[in-house]
Amino acid sequence: MTGVVKKNGPCHLNEVPPSPDTQHWARWAASEPEWAWPDGKSVAVTLTFDVDAETAWYGLGDEYFARLTSLSEGRYSVVRAVPRILQLLRRLDLRTTFFVPGWTAENYPHVVEAILADGHEIGHHGYVHSRTDRVSADVQREEIERGFSALESIGVPRPRGYRNPSWEMTTETAAMVSEYGFLYDSSFLTDDRPYIEKVGDVELLELPSHWSLDDWPYFGYTGDFGGNTSTAATWRQNQWDEYQIARDEGRNVNFVCHPEVIGRGYRFTQLAKLLEDILADGRAWFPTMEELALHVAPKLLPARSRS
Amino acid sequence: MTGVVKKNGPCHLNEVPPSPDTQHWARWAASEPEWAWPDGKSVAVTLTFDVDAETAWYGLGDEYFARLTSLSEGRYSVVRAVPRILQLLRRLDLRTTFFVPGWTAENYPHVVEAILADGHEIGHHGYVHSRTDRVSADVQREEIERGFSALESIGVPRPRGYRNPSWEMTTETAAMVSEYGFLYDSSFLTDDRPYIEKVGDVELLELPSHWSLDDWPYFGYTGDFGGNTSTAATWRQNQWDEYQIARDEGRNVNFVCHPEVIGRGYRFTQLAKLLEDILADGRAWFPTMEELALHVAPKLLPARSRS
Amino acid sequence: MTGVVKKNGPCHLNEVPPSPDTQHWARWAASEPEWAWPDGKSVAVTLTFDVDAETAWYGLGDEYFARLTSLSEGRYSVVRAVPRILQLLRRLDLRTTFFVPGWTAENYPHVVEAILADGHEIGHHGYVHSRTDRVSADVQREEIERGFSALESIGVPRPRGYRNPSWEMTTETAAMVSEYGFLYDSSFLTDDRPYIEKVGDVELLELPSHWSLDDWPYFGYTGDFGGNTSTAATWRQNQWDEYQIARDEGRNVNFVCHPEVIGRGYRFTQLAKLLEDILADGRAWFPTMEELALHVAPKLLPARSRS
Amino acid sequence: MTGVVKKNGPCHLNEVPPSPDTQHWARWAASEPEWAWPDGKSVAVTLTFDVDAETAWYGLGDEYFARLTSLSEGRYSVVRAVPRILQLLRRLDLRTTFFVPGWTAENYPHVVEAILADGHEIGHHGYVHSRTDRVSADVQREEIERGFSALESIGVPRPRGYRNPSWEMTTETAAMVSEYGFLYDSSFLTDDRPYIEKVGDVELLELPSHWSLDDWPYFGYTGDFGGNTSTAATWRQNQWDEYQIARDEGRNVNFVCHPEVIGRGYRFTQLAKLLEDILADGRAWFPTMEELALHVAPKLLPARSRS
Repeated sequence: MTGVVKKNGPCHLNEVPPSPDTQHWARWAASEPEWAWPDGKSVAVTLTFDVDAETAWYGLGDEYFARLTSLSEGRYSVVRAVPRILQLLRRLDLRTTFFVPGWTAENYPHVVEAILADGHEIGHHGYVHSRTDRVSADVQREEIERGFSALESIGVPRPRGYRNPSWEMTTETAAMVSEYGFLYDSSFLTDDRPYIEKVGDVELLELPSHWSLDDWPYFGYTGDFGGNTSTAATWRQNQWDEYQIARDEGRNVNFVCHPEVIGRGYRFTQLAKLLEDILADGRAWFPTMEELALHVAPKLLPARSRS
Repeated sequence: MTGVVKKNGPCHLNEVPPSPDTQHWARWAASEPEWAWPDGKSVAVTLTFDVDAETAWYGLGDEYFARLTSLSEGRYSVVRAVPRILQLLRRLDLRTTFFVPGWTAENYPHVVEAILADGHEIGHHGYVHSRTDRVSADVQREEIERGFSALESIGVPRPRGYRNPSWEMTTETAAMVSEYGFLYDSSFLTDDRPYIEKVGDVELLELPSHWSLDDWPYFGYTGDFGGNTSTAATWRQNQWDEYQIARDEGRNVNFVCHPEVIGRGYRFTQLAKLLEDILADGRAWFPTMEELALHVAPKLLPARSRS
Repeated sequence: MTGVVKKNGPCHLNEVPPSPDTQHWARWAASEPEWAWPDGKSVAVTLTFDVDAETAWYGLGDEYFARLTSLSEGRYSVVRAVPRILQLLRRLDLRTTFFVPGWTAENYPHVVEAILADGHEIGHHGYVHSRTDRVSADVQREEIERGFSALESIGVPRPRGYRNPSWEMTTETAAMVSEYGFLYDSSFLTDDRPYIEKVGDVELLELPSHWSLDDWPYFGYTGDFGGNTSTAATWRQNQWDEYQIARDEGRNVNFVCHPEVIGRGYRFTQLAKLLEDILADGRAWFPTMEELALHVAPKLLPARSRS
Repeated sequence: MTGVVKKNGPCHLNEVPPSPDTQHWARWAASEPEWAWPDGKSVAVTLTFDVDAETAWYGLGDEYFARLTSLSEGRYSVVRAVPRILQLLRRLDLRTTFFVPGWTAENYPHVVEAILADGHEIGHHGYVHSRTDRVSADVQREEIERGFSALESIGVPRPRGYRNPSWEMTTETAAMVSEYGFLYDSSFLTDDRPYIEKVGDVELLELPSHWSLDDWPYFGYTGDFGGNTSTAATWRQNQWDEYQIARDEGRNVNFVCHPEVIGRGYRFTQLAKLLEDILADGRAWFPTMEELALHVAPKLLPARSRS
């Protein structure tokens, strides 16, 4: 059932679904790594920002060229929200990770420079945020390569982490994440702890999050798709509750924010409160994603199926 | 109006809708069975888990082969959530029912073994979770047969209960549920008490639930479809309120959970609290679905239209 | 701009939108009828139930013939919910209005008989709940005529009120509501007070409600469309708040419920509480829709553009 | 990458996305204007109403000609809601801005007259609310010109402000806003402060709002699209929270309301409470949009890239 022999799949499917690596997942499900966070902390909190700007919409197709209001909502990210976020992180003395598509970096280099100047990490987030599952392998490769070159062209250190735009990872791009030597990936959701994701023979050091830890599902609204209009307190409640159980379980919790979403005034107040509450709790280590990856990598090796 | 003579249906319909069995439903609507739950309990609480894993997405079609992130969200079920659920059920000393598609069982046999080892029931949930209303009668039969053989191949006792994937029951599959001798079905919503569902001449011992007692409508979110982002307390409130009225009416309440949904940390805390609150109330019998079916079957016989 | 001369419409429209009757609406907008509710009551509360049963889905098309689970959710209305509702109304000593599609009446005559036996009004709600805007004028007429004959065939007094299925009123059906001599209509939303709706030359005594006073938007969920999963307290809060302002303004408030929606246990508790709270307030007159129409008709005549 | 040479765009796009003006946005992102609101106030609150009436639906296409219930929901705006709003604004002694499509003004001139009589501003909102991104440049021009002539025909002073229907601004319409000499625009979302929007060489004095400050996303529901059913208190909470941070940051907050949405009784209660709370806070200046534009224009000139 490995898909080598092409035949009709079971029931209504035209092809046979590729089998997951049964042994890999069984071994991992049974594992309970001793994370041993630095300084005796109980929980590793990673706070990440995807600075999509206009590419949030370009990633959906050419029709957004004519939809200037949507584009301007994306642009709020680099014009208004990132400066506000950087100020908050300076006040709280936190360093964290920003995933920046190449197009955003080329067009708003001052934003990238400001992020770097404050000591934050910059990760790879494609070039124009193409939905990976809708484009060819060639386009997927172009997304990776132009993402690298755009960041390089304005002096960003070569990213060590990759987050797939729109979380639509494919087999081809997963292989490229391995091929291009990324230290970590942040595009899969198999666990709520750092783990080894396995796609065919490809293994990735995975730092997962989840839709419920992403701000867009709570607040993202468009005239076409609708969306939710939660109070900002609702978002904070779920994040705080997840923080608490992550702390009690001694694991990592990985928050995903979009500056144009969480950077609206009344929501930003709640982001600040969430971080202040976590800091006041005194139990959290706040690494960048790279720091987290470096810390957990040796602890995950025993789980690798080939080691 | 029984559909025997094919003609144009009323108003805009191309066919005549099949008439329900008027007498059957009238008789049942008027019935008030004395459930007589064991040990003088007031309410029967059935807690069920649909362990779809990747089949939650395969059931929607081949395009999900390329959408690895969605698949990984499903896989969270077997890697992370079921172990957590089993631990909770051991702590609370509860035995309950897991509906497991054949594909899941074949690919994650250790999960099925762990469920069985703890004394839980395993029910039939199709093979790759095909949406029954979208496939031919042949494929519907394949779903049933491969579901059986997959479970059998890893040593699962032949399931006595069936739950339709995605709750899209058809006339053909309803007939098969009868033909294959299932003790009970859990795919219809005509009542909030156990009852006899009647589809043409087919009669099924039905243990119904409802969308409002299913976790997916509260939390399920995808980039394509959107979804809700309730606080976990909102979900618990509705479930608790339904428990209370079920208890006051002396009936059954049937909770439907998906491990990848309810097994996220901050939601799992609320599942634990819901169960603890019900246990503290001291009024609930917690049978497996099979135990419930065996208990209610004799009480439903008087309602059968042919008896 | 009356549409008599066919020409291209403004901007992107292919036709000229029909003009509303400017004078009619201006006169009505300025009016403040003295409602003079009976017994010195401050507010007229109309509680209405649309007993769609399976037609809620048949109205959307033939594909629902194969979707038995959806149909069963509709059937919950007549099997479980209406009996529960009738019991509540008996306890509270309220008489109200049920809109019943012809198909429902033919297939579940005992339900209609029980409603009548308790002294409630039965209104016209089409035959198989066809979406009026999607079918021909002939089908629209068939919906009206078969709706009448089905109710008549089981002894229901000829309905004096009409509510359009799915609230998709058309010019053709509006004319038929007038032609068939209905006393009142409940399908338009131009006001939150009883008023005269005007469609071309047709004038209807309108008893309006609104989506926010309908239970489906709060609770209706399907696998295809998604939907909301409000707590039942959220629904009650909005209804209670609207009751309060209706009372303070001395007008009518018109609640729309679907037995299969509001009749779920945990929601039904809140319906009971809403009604108990209104009764405890002591300020409400609870007429049937027909009683309300008879009361307001003379007060609305001055607003009729032709009088 | 200025789009002059037509070639294939990056990755999956067929064209090269037009580059934003990097310098303009960098300069603006770094700016912190001293707004110096009149009378030492801390915050400028603009409350705006889009009086779409039936055009809310006509803007979506001809199929709404047959959907009379939807149209009547829009008509509630001019029949019931605007009078209620005007009464509230008189009670609170506030003057504000109403954006009125030409078709609405032609068909409900008394509404426009009442708005003017109370000293409110009337802004341009197209003719039949056409979705700008879906129509040709010619139709976009017709929307502007017929919008002007319709308002002029009933004696409305030539509008100085423009708000794009459905917030789907295009390059063509942006150029027309400049060409027709509007003082300000309210269709882009790049900032939460007044700013200079730049589309190619076109510069607009922008008074932005956001979807989260618009009532439709919280309450708008249709049978086709679904929608949200928030409590009115949820809407007020988010608006109040945004008011508070706008006040603390010393900027403007721009609320967008639709009379048929916010003018439902139980929601209107919360609008009144929001305004009363803001007035009680004593820190807000309540200008019309035009007054705001005149106040901020000189402060924004330094940010203009060409000045």
